[in-house]
Amino acid sequence: MGAASIKPSEAQADVADNLPPNVPEWMKAQGAPVLHPAYGVPSPFEADVVRRARSRARMSTAASSTTPLQDLHGIVTPNGLHFERHHAGVPTIDPEQHRLMVHGMVDRPLIFTMAEIMRFPSQSHLYFLECSGNGSFAGLPSTATAQDTHGLISCCEWTGVPLATVLAEAGVQPHAAWVLAEGADGAGMTRSIPIAKAMDDALLAYAQNGERLRPEQGYPLRLFLPGYEGNMSVKWLRRLKIGDQPFETREETSKYTDLMPDGTARQFTFVMEARSVITHPSGGQTLDGHGFHEIAGLAWSGHGKITRVEVSVDGGAHWRDAKLQTPVLPKCLTRFRAAWTWDGAPARLQSRATDESGYVQPTRDMLVGARGLNSGYHDNAIHTWGVLADGSVINAT
Amino acid sequence: MGAASIKPSEAQADVADNLPPNVPEWMKAQGAPVLHPAYGVPSPFEADVVRRARSRARMSTAASSTTPLQDLHGIVTPNGLHFERHHAGVPTIDPEQHRLMVHGMVDRPLIFTMAEIMRFPSQSHLYFLECSGNGSFAGLPSTATAQDTHGLISCCEWTGVPLATVLAEAGVQPHAAWVLAEGADGAGMTRSIPIAKAMDDALLAYAQNGERLRPEQGYPLRLFLPGYEGNMSVKWLRRLKIGDQPFETREETSKYTDLMPDGTARQFTFVMEARSVITHPSGGQTLDGHGFHEIAGLAWSGHGKITRVEVSVDGGAHWRDAKLQTPVLPKCLTRFRAAWTWDGAPARLQSRATDESGYVQPTRDMLVGARGLNSGYHDNAIHTWGVLADGSVINAT
Repeated sequence: MGAASIKPSEAQADVADNLPPNVPEWMKAQGAPVLHPAYGVPSPFEADVVRRARSRARMSTAASSTTPLQDLHGIVTPNGLHFERHHAGVPTIDPEQHRLMVHGMVDRPLIFTMAEIMRFPSQSHLYFLECSGNGSFAGLPSTATAQDTHGLISCCEWTGVPLATVLAEAGVQPHAAWVLAEGADGAGMTRSIPIAKAMDDALLAYAQNGERLRPEQGYPLRLFLPGYEGNMSVKWLRRLKIGDQPFETREETSKYTDLMPDGTARQFTFVMEARSVITHPSGGQTLDGHGFHEIAGLAWSGHGKITRVEVSVDGGAHWRDAKLQTPVLPKCLTRFRAAWTWDGAPARLQSRATDESGYVQPTRDMLVGARGLNSGYHDNAIHTWGVLADGSVINAT
Repeated sequence: MGAASIKPSEAQADVADNLPPNVPEWMKAQGAPVLHPAYGVPSPFEADVVRRARSRARMSTAASSTTPLQDLHGIVTPNGLHFERHHAGVPTIDPEQHRLMVHGMVDRPLIFTMAEIMRFPSQSHLYFLECSGNGSFAGLPSTATAQDTHGLISCCEWTGVPLATVLAEAGVQPHAAWVLAEGADGAGMTRSIPIAKAMDDALLAYAQNGERLRPEQGYPLRLFLPGYEGNMSVKWLRRLKIGDQPFETREETSKYTDLMPDGTARQFTFVMEARSVITHPSGGQTLDGHGFHEIAGLAWSGHGKITRVEVSVDGGAHWRDAKLQTPVLPKCLTRFRAAWTWDGAPARLQSRATDESGYVQPTRDMLVGARGLNSGYHDNAIHTWGVLADGSVINAT
């Protein structure tokens, strides 16, 4: 970028010439102009900070990609790094031709244009979104990074219209109990939403982190159900049908249920329970010497606010409180941090989240004991990173 | 993107074929795969939502570009749309070769690598950043948008190390009162910072909205001074010199002072005082018919939290309170909203912010009366948008 304006003799300078007390080469020339480009992009030195595919997908349109948690700071996920999970790829939708239908048990069936939806009063909230499959029940290799183990979670400021506002326009009938949400993708993604959630904090979201939704996040319109498993926040939302029973779509019968050890399946396990992960130090990173290191990570709960995060450096034998970055917001990522002086001995790093309902994140043994290993969904167990004597960090779960 | 996978016969379908009750063409095919691309980009239908150059620059490396406030929602500015202001363009800096020197009135002069800086305890905060030249004292045409009138402001979650932490390592001497901050750009941008601010909430920032700083925001390291005029948050930070007097650099003598009516200049006017702007409806937009419209906008203060925003639809004759989106954070943008039923008559829309210090945003007459028209900096006057009978919105300030 700016390098093009550096004279060849300077570009060939020794690295040491750029170190103090010398004036570095990039101070001896004009840099890149403004609007280079008009919509900015990351530094070329950060080219490794990208989403990555999960290995388990059999086709690239029914697949997922993960957020590089190990390289991020704070709680906001840049839109370009928000995880993806699609069932039939990302449709290209002209917003002028997109419509939202509301029908079923309503007094007035309605069809809205995007302009009509955006005319309603709006709200903005920082919320996490997590795929129910964001887990490692199946086990991951010791080389796994935080992106591999926990990368199906992201956090943005979402703006939209309360779903309750639009349902009030249509006039929901007294015995209505469920809402079918349908996406305008090739999968016709459909889920049943309890009417109580629809009337509570559900949003018809059209913006994320200030700008309009990204295509892979449902442009031009998605449902957003704070704290619920991600697939229910139906993208490319085209239809809401009100009923008095769940609609028993394939995504809530053959998929997105939790097969238990006795062969029965838990259905409608909506809320993502309290969970946390240490992002630094984490798998694939290396501690640069003994002494002070900051342990940093993320905690979240679909039930509300995180009230406490504890960390352990000895695999759960001893715990101490981490500091929570304020503001702590409900159904949002919370950044936690704890000071650690590494003495050079091998260590086992863990974090444990508690939410405002009093729920405490379980150990893996507790979770597997209760749930078995038949299901890949709703893994919220305490995770372990191993720190080896040479400072390298490995997945130890 | 996904359009490439649509069969020609479908691609030629009539627009009406995509409207209810029909199933739109983009539901009849697989869409784009995941990681298309690995670092995501906005929808092609949002190609107009970009930064734009301000007209007054004489060269493209000593120039500014503006955030499209009229197209944004909530408070977060996506990194790709953060405003720019450079004095010698954007340098391309290899983070491995970047150093921060701390010297002057300290016990231990120090030179830090980026890895060393990032090892210190960190903090994350949502803060606005506003250029002191974000104003329209000189007058703008009736066609001006919110991007033209107020676009030199953005808001991100910034992560970094408290400057106080690094100064404590160096050991600041008792009579120190000022810190010189120098950028590693071709302009050698330098400003003097009061030691009290350096010890308060100043950050050595290395990340914005989760990811590492963008090149045009100072990659790999910038100073961040919450609530202060933007140019003091020195980008590409390479040097901090501690002294007992301000350093009287060119950017605080010939520039970035406020020339008063009597010919004297105000110097060291650091804090950006309370201000607000209505972003919808705003210049260049058109109201789509009479009836309900949501007035939405942004308010901020370098002194802390916004406590109140009032709106007027009759040019300031009558005011009523807007609703503030929570959480309201200090030195951060606050989104305000107010319901409005437009009766079709011409209207004059204004907003007025109050902050926790009790300061109330002034009218333009009050500001010009106190400050005159010699200076282009620190314009925080109440702004007026005119709504014409045909629904079009014009700049009326």
